[in-house]
Amino acid sequence: MSKMHSVAVIGLGSMGMGVATSCIRAGFDVYGIDLSDAARQALAAAGAKGTSHQCTDFAAQLDAVIVLVVNAKQVNAVLFESGLAASLKAGTPVMVCATISADDAKAIAAGLAQYDLCMLDAPLSGGAAKAASGELTVMASGEPRVFDQLEPVLNAVAAKVYNVGPEIGKGSTVKIIHQLLAGVHIAVGAEAMAMAARADIPLDLMYDVVTNAAGNSWMFENRMKHVVEGDYTPTSMVDIFVKDLGLVADSAKAMHFPLPLASTALNMFTEASNAGFGQEDDSAVIKIFSGIELPKKER
Amino acid sequence: MSKMHSVAVIGLGSMGMGVATSCIRAGFDVYGIDLSDAARQALAAAGAKGTSHQCTDFAAQLDAVIVLVVNAKQVNAVLFESGLAASLKAGTPVMVCATISADDAKAIAAGLAQYDLCMLDAPLSGGAAKAASGELTVMASGEPRVFDQLEPVLNAVAAKVYNVGPEIGKGSTVKIIHQLLAGVHIAVGAEAMAMAARADIPLDLMYDVVTNAAGNSWMFENRMKHVVEGDYTPTSMVDIFVKDLGLVADSAKAMHFPLPLASTALNMFTEASNAGFGQEDDSAVIKIFSGIELPKKER
Repeated sequence: MSKMHSVAVIGLGSMGMGVATSCIRAGFDVYGIDLSDAARQALAAAGAKGTSHQCTDFAAQLDAVIVLVVNAKQVNAVLFESGLAASLKAGTPVMVCATISADDAKAIAAGLAQYDLCMLDAPLSGGAAKAASGELTVMASGEPRVFDQLEPVLNAVAAKVYNVGPEIGKGSTVKIIHQLLAGVHIAVGAEAMAMAARADIPLDLMYDVVTNAAGNSWMFENRMKHVVEGDYTPTSMVDIFVKDLGLVADSAKAMHFPLPLASTALNMFTEASNAGFGQEDDSAVIKIFSGIELPKKER
Repeated sequence: MSKMHSVAVIGLGSMGMGVATSCIRAGFDVYGIDLSDAARQALAAAGAKGTSHQCTDFAAQLDAVIVLVVNAKQVNAVLFESGLAASLKAGTPVMVCATISADDAKAIAAGLAQYDLCMLDAPLSGGAAKAASGELTVMASGEPRVFDQLEPVLNAVAAKVYNVGPEIGKGSTVKIIHQLLAGVHIAVGAEAMAMAARADIPLDLMYDVVTNAAGNSWMFENRMKHVVEGDYTPTSMVDIFVKDLGLVADSAKAMHFPLPLASTALNMFTEASNAGFGQEDDSAVIKIFSGIELPKKER
């Protein structure tokens, strides 16, 4: 159980890089996999034992794999199409942290089981800063022994680990419901600020009132600041919420359940993407409203 | 300007009672008006100079009037139909704190002007506890001299006063946009918790994850606790949001502006009211979702 020395992190974006450096700090031998030269060099400089663009390169010596790619298609690519699953030691735990549907999580776990590999369905929340400091929130489901195997890794990367039970897919479902709230909060923040602009209320004053009153949300406070400053440099993009609220909609359909607000928010982000704002900060969903003037970035 | 000794508070509900006792603590002679015997007795016991069910009873000696009734119809009743406006000294400032539309605020200000009375359009936020401690948030518009006249009263009741400018209606508009956010946050909190119930995620765990992550809102944290505990004893009722989101819709129509999320949330609260939950806590909007089992209150 305590034989956890070598860990591979696959996907060195802002979250993966933070997770990998947290694992280095905790004393593991860390191997980083990414297609980006820059990301691999950055991790090597941070103390990785090895890096590669090839998923299979360190397979034989790994005690755990952490998958931090963007969607289910990429998870399948790095685990199965690359040949990694076939190359890992039997019993190696695979921690899948991408935001994916419960059905995809189950299919991936079934695929891993064919190679005698076990999965933790372990989406993350907290953003790049908390990833870097090893203080993420993990909402995970899987067999108790997989939690036990991965405990040293979870301790290294997370401030809070929620155990949603043994059933693969439950962790992903909790993350998806969380994203429902996050996405609607951004969209309604935009709707409220757009109405304020229409009513000639100064947006900085509106922001100040809301963040000091019961109408506040974490996302309003974080994202509507970008609107007040007129700065749509992406921290997280509109297209990410087209994807995540799309997963919310797929999950709702699979469980035959209506989501009046989340479906509306998905329409808003989809319209924003089609209008050309998909690669801007997700607060740019406010640009779907016509007939208003928004603050411009100061130069 | 500093001749502010006697203040009447009209409407002694949970907010009005808190405002009145805050004024007593600040050393004003406070007069309380309410139809409820119990409310009047409570304020008398708290040190009021006088109480009555009749709005005109202390009119001649008042230096300011604070109106804390529920809607525009009641504001018109207590100010005009009662004969109060005709009985006040010319120049007496009237602080209207009800959540009303910008158009209603303007009409009331025009009515007061006919009696040489000036108005502060001054909706409140913060709830009963902050009202009692004199720490409300006030979002107010009106002439600078009215702000000056009412400064001692504002100091007594508010921790934060936002000056939205001289135009009557702007204060009300800021409050209405705030209510847009508050109402949608409750409705989407309910939608997310309903989906969690459908997915057999324990609601206390879902609550714990969200309140420790970026999907949190002030309303989610406050109201979804009632869902987790199965306790729909009203702190604020479903029907209040049918009213407030109705004002949001009216205001949007008046400014020819679409509100995709707020209009959906209004439908959800209206359905909850028609289904018989209008007098329950506003978190009971979750009861519009069928095919789920919600936590029951422990006895």
